[in-house]
Amino acid sequence: MWPVRKILVIGIGAGNPDHLTVQAVKALQTVDVFFVLDKGTVKQELVDLRASILEAHVTRPYRWLEGRDPERDRTATDYVQAVDDWRRARADVCLELLSSLGADEVGAFLVWGDPSLYDSTLAILDDLLGRGESFEVEVIPGVTSVAALTAGHKVSLNQVGKPVQITTGRRLAAGWPSDVDDVAVMLDASYSFEGVDPDTWIYWGAYLGMPDEILISGRVGDVASQIRAARDEARARKGWIMDTYLLRRT
Amino acid sequence: MWPVRKILVIGIGAGNPDHLTVQAVKALQTVDVFFVLDKGTVKQELVDLRASILEAHVTRPYRWLEGRDPERDRTATDYVQAVDDWRRARADVCLELLSSLGADEVGAFLVWGDPSLYDSTLAILDDLLGRGESFEVEVIPGVTSVAALTAGHKVSLNQVGKPVQITTGRRLAAGWPSDVDDVAVMLDASYSFEGVDPDTWIYWGAYLGMPDEILISGRVGDVASQIRAARDEARARKGWIMDTYLLRRT
Ligand SMILES: C[S@@+](CC[C@H](N)C(=O)[O-])C[C@H]1O[C@@H](n2cnc3c(N)ncnc32)[C@H](O)[C@@H]1O
Ligand SMILES: C[S@@+](CC[C@H](N)C(=O)[O-])C[C@H]1O[C@@H](n2cnc3c(N)ncnc32)[C@H](O)[C@@H]1O
Repeated sequence: MWPVRKILVIGIGAGNPDHLTVQAVKALQTVDVFFVLDKGTVKQELVDLRASILEAHVTRPYRWLEGRDPERDRTATDYVQAVDDWRRARADVCLELLSSLGADEVGAFLVWGDPSLYDSTLAILDDLLGRGESFEVEVIPGVTSVAALTAGHKVSLNQVGKPVQITTGRRLAAGWPSDVDDVAVMLDASYSFEGVDPDTWIYWGAYLGMPDEILISGRVGDVASQIRAARDEARARKGWIMDTYLLRRT
Repeated sequence: MWPVRKILVIGIGAGNPDHLTVQAVKALQTVDVFFVLDKGTVKQELVDLRASILEAHVTRPYRWLEGRDPERDRTATDYVQAVDDWRRARADVCLELLSSLGADEVGAFLVWGDPSLYDSTLAILDDLLGRGESFEVEVIPGVTSVAALTAGHKVSLNQVGKPVQITTGRRLAAGWPSDVDDVAVMLDASYSFEGVDPDTWIYWGAYLGMPDEILISGRVGDVASQIRAARDEARARKGWIMDTYLLRRT
């Protein structure tokens, strides 16, 4: 048997370093090389968070390799195509990173939240496998920002026996989805909650699990402007924001 | 200030004891009384799992209080009403359990997966607060069985920029939900995947994160009967089963 390069895709939770699972902690201790894809504009706070996770949990020596994450064309009208192009460019960068991994070494990507939710690491690795690269992938599940949101508000994601949809701000802006009364929204830069029925209930959270966590909930008609103000203020003060919300019709 | 009773609702992940987060481990160490609501028929394996989690992570003395979880009326035609009645009965049992908690003590419920997903603990505690009980609730998010499923199959929950719905087997049996191509299904005792378009892709998993984990994926038309056979065989052998799946149209 040839030695196989192993790539771990590790969910690190949504902001609180203590969201890390015991499984993730154990996995971190087996890693030879950590791969990081960062945009030029990455927030120092998030870089520090990752560094502090490694500091707290990894005692053996490791290498730390950064690749420059190519920018996505946000002016493109075809969202899926733009994301595809961007993925291909990212895959090229990743290939470069992986080439430094020895034949029997373990590499790892640290992924925000859970690796299955609105994250492209798995798709990139699939692309590379499709190009004939050979390595073994292992995925370590993590706490999602949706779970951090509902924990912060102490609410259920679903109503009894009912479905819930997880979607993007862009999708919500196109209209309330059919067949669901509960919608969790991620990646919303455009205050799409302002467009829903004012009687909808909203559970909104920013910087979930982090020291700056903000939680606001109420009837959309009552709290939408308060959320916009809190969001604008926090983003101006910190230079970045990550927020998620749950909309509920009862 | 009066001392306040504190109730922790701790997500313990979906089957692997190592799904426990560092936050959950720290929280466990502050607990005076663990509350357990078990059905008469609870599976020894799951009881053992919880016991082994406490054994591994709690060193200080604690009390362990079990309440008998009332049965839900599964013959009722009105699902929501039946669940409501059951919840009220559970709340009575919980009230009894909580009455043993000292004024400044910490109690905890250990919840499978994440407390926000198809679990009634938070609703029961809300009921009790509504009845005038006074305590403080803190929720510790956990890894869901959905994240364990996608990790096992090394796939994303959503397609790029697209929504995903989480629903029950009962709902899926009533028809494919509108506006989504990706549907995660929980609580399905009736093989509802057999009713979907045979060209749908299915990622199915049972006993996720546990030593007996089973993963099967493929075109529904090709693997549905294999999943049914695996499910029936495993359930007969072990006496119980927990399974979840993701359906994807591309
Ligand atoms: C690219 S997605 C990644 C999601 C991640 N994989 C997860 O499981 O949560 C980024 C989006 O997640 C949400 N998000 C992630 N972390 C968050 C946090 N700490 N607070 C609020 N929202 C967060 C925001 O909606 C953000 O736009
Ligand atoms: C009452 S719900 C609780 C879900 C839990 N709160 C969570 O976050 O995963 C129980 C359902 O979760 C799913 N489930 C939970 N644990 C599982 C496991 N280890 N493997 C497969 N499915 C699981 C099954 O669909 C089961 O019917």
